[in-house]
Amino acid sequence: MVAIVDGSITKFGKRKESLLQLISEVGIPLVKKYEIDFVIVSNTYSGELNSISGLNNLATTYLGIDKVPSIRVDNTSGSGGSALLVAKSLLDSKMANTVLVIGAEKMSEKSTKQVTSVIASLLPREERMAGLTLPSLAGLLSKEYMKRYDAPREAFARVAVKNHHNGSLNPYAHVQKEVSLEEVLKSPVIADPLTLYEFTPISDGACALLMVRSEDSYSFTKKPVFIKGIGTASDTSSISERENILSLNSVRNAGVIAKKTAKVEKVDFAELHDMSTVLEIVQAEELGLLKKGEGWKAYFDTVTEINGEMPINTSGGLNSKGHPIGASGVAQAYEAFLQLRREAGQRQVKDARTGLSLSMAGFGNSATVLIYGEEP
Amino acid sequence: MVAIVDGSITKFGKRKESLLQLISEVGIPLVKKYEIDFVIVSNTYSGELNSISGLNNLATTYLGIDKVPSIRVDNTSGSGGSALLVAKSLLDSKMANTVLVIGAEKMSEKSTKQVTSVIASLLPREERMAGLTLPSLAGLLSKEYMKRYDAPREAFARVAVKNHHNGSLNPYAHVQKEVSLEEVLKSPVIADPLTLYEFTPISDGACALLMVRSEDSYSFTKKPVFIKGIGTASDTSSISERENILSLNSVRNAGVIAKKTAKVEKVDFAELHDMSTVLEIVQAEELGLLKKGEGWKAYFDTVTEINGEMPINTSGGLNSKGHPIGASGVAQAYEAFLQLRREAGQRQVKDARTGLSLSMAGFGNSATVLIYGEEP
Ligand SMILES: [Ca+2]
Repeated sequence: MVAIVDGSITKFGKRKESLLQLISEVGIPLVKKYEIDFVIVSNTYSGELNSISGLNNLATTYLGIDKVPSIRVDNTSGSGGSALLVAKSLLDSKMANTVLVIGAEKMSEKSTKQVTSVIASLLPREERMAGLTLPSLAGLLSKEYMKRYDAPREAFARVAVKNHHNGSLNPYAHVQKEVSLEEVLKSPVIADPLTLYEFTPISDGACALLMVRSEDSYSFTKKPVFIKGIGTASDTSSISERENILSLNSVRNAGVIAKKTAKVEKVDFAELHDMSTVLEIVQAEELGLLKKGEGWKAYFDTVTEINGEMPINTSGGLNSKGHPIGASGVAQAYEAFLQLRREAGQRQVKDARTGLSLSMAGFGNSATVLIYGEEP
Repeated sequence: MVAIVDGSITKFGKRKESLLQLISEVGIPLVKKYEIDFVIVSNTYSGELNSISGLNNLATTYLGIDKVPSIRVDNTSGSGGSALLVAKSLLDSKMANTVLVIGAEKMSEKSTKQVTSVIASLLPREERMAGLTLPSLAGLLSKEYMKRYDAPREAFARVAVKNHHNGSLNPYAHVQKEVSLEEVLKSPVIADPLTLYEFTPISDGACALLMVRSEDSYSFTKKPVFIKGIGTASDTSSISERENILSLNSVRNAGVIAKKTAKVEKVDFAELHDMSTVLEIVQAEELGLLKKGEGWKAYFDTVTEINGEMPINTSGGLNSKGHPIGASGVAQAYEAFLQLRREAGQRQVKDARTGLSLSMAGFGNSATVLIYGEEP
């Protein structure tokens, strides 16, 4: 088993700093304190968006640790989860005793149109040609969900209200302001029926974690956070080939594996991959956090709020915290780290002892679920 | 310990097939025969050169195994070595029982000028601005080597003659023809004194390997090839900061670690990262395969030829086989696999029992050395 023993995050948002400066901002505090054996940079678009290749080697040079071996791990939006999985493997196999995982993406150097086009390059050619984009798929999913489960459109908007509230309590979140239900419903439609506030903004940001094997962790900190289980699973990239757009098989399967390896049935909070509001509900159902077909009802109550029975996206989620592609999955783990150390400030979940995060690529092409605990 | 139990390669060269078609060409024969737990795609430039992101997820869809989890591992020219290191870790940590590593790059979609500019994006900004490129660094290195060790310029040209001869015996090599010493010396100068034939061409290609834990390997094949040791090390990306341009610290350090973990002192053949001819000599010296400062003398004799005492780049090396960035390190391991199974045809090294490969990023930013054996 492995543990997270320290971490660091930048404010997410439109940042003036370059990609390598964001990496330095989170990496330098950690390399000053610890001897690092291996660096994993979780990043997808340094070439397309920042004209940089060999990012991991440039990163170690910027951090002043250029003798330390490094790689870049990419799995698009799910890169962070994959990077944590690789870090765990390197530690398990004793290829390294300390691994620094840095998730980072600098997206605002290019126009929104360019970013959208680059992100669409992960869809199969035929679907791209048919004009499908990730937002349009979210629109389709929400309509299907409403039809199948007789859910009101307002349920999705309520996800945004809750996540913007949580984000307003997170000093590192991109959006940093509350929105009302009316504001969400009246904001411009992006993919019918979903509106602007129901999609993650385009953000820059970075997050770093120091990981070690569990047996070493107490020599780094009094409060390590243990990765009790990890599961990864995949599904077809081609949405049109899926039997049922409402089934995120990769999410469900990754969750089953993670819970089984962790020997944990119930968690005290979860960070999900709410690229759009509807995804949070469907993911929570696939992971067994909310009841299948009834997840939407939880949003007409306090269930998923910070003080509810099943707090979801206390950080603000991708929806309000932002989604710098390679950084997101790492930042989810950082929120779990803060929660389980009782360091989440105004967002603190009371008596949090176990948590879960879901890092997802594309529209469920792949998923990595991690389960965290304050005890090994 | 882990082993390679099967493999597949495309012909390297200017190929009409797309990146995903090249991946299918090597992947499909293996996914038809084996159950795959995890896919690692070793690739650097799918975004910049092929407008594809999420390559690993598209790859599993093309291979008809889209339920299998996957990631992309990038370390520029050294991606292949890094991917093998990650594969070993995943197997060691039992995150997977079978890992399919696919190295692939499709470079000829863009013009040579565009490719050169994209590759230069791995250099630190200041060095890029100063007009440094990887070829210009190779030119500087060769002049320094000649001066320091009183070596004749012809030594480098002889590397190209030997590697083109080997490549002419390799049906998968890009160049497929012998060149004479005169032809090498008279071809256009790329970076004084080095000429066209002394640099790797721009190639497309893919190579796949199936890896399992050693204890499982004999249930896959009668002749597994074991990865006895692996070492990875890094150095500054900034060449101007190095004390001595002739010292490839990452190569030397990775070699020391690999030999120590393998408990092997002498190998029977080596595949090196001869992006240019001079690098083969300097790398062979750093790895202790040839004597420091005297490596060039071996090329006025038969030492490094297929039937010599220390055969180097029997495959033709990057120089003649080609260098599809993400594929190269994987293809080196495939050559070792063939040699140790006595399946290298006209290139077969007699009584080969142990081999070495060096996968290098940039100009020695990082290096991964693997040591292979026919026995565990
Ligand atoms: Ca470096």
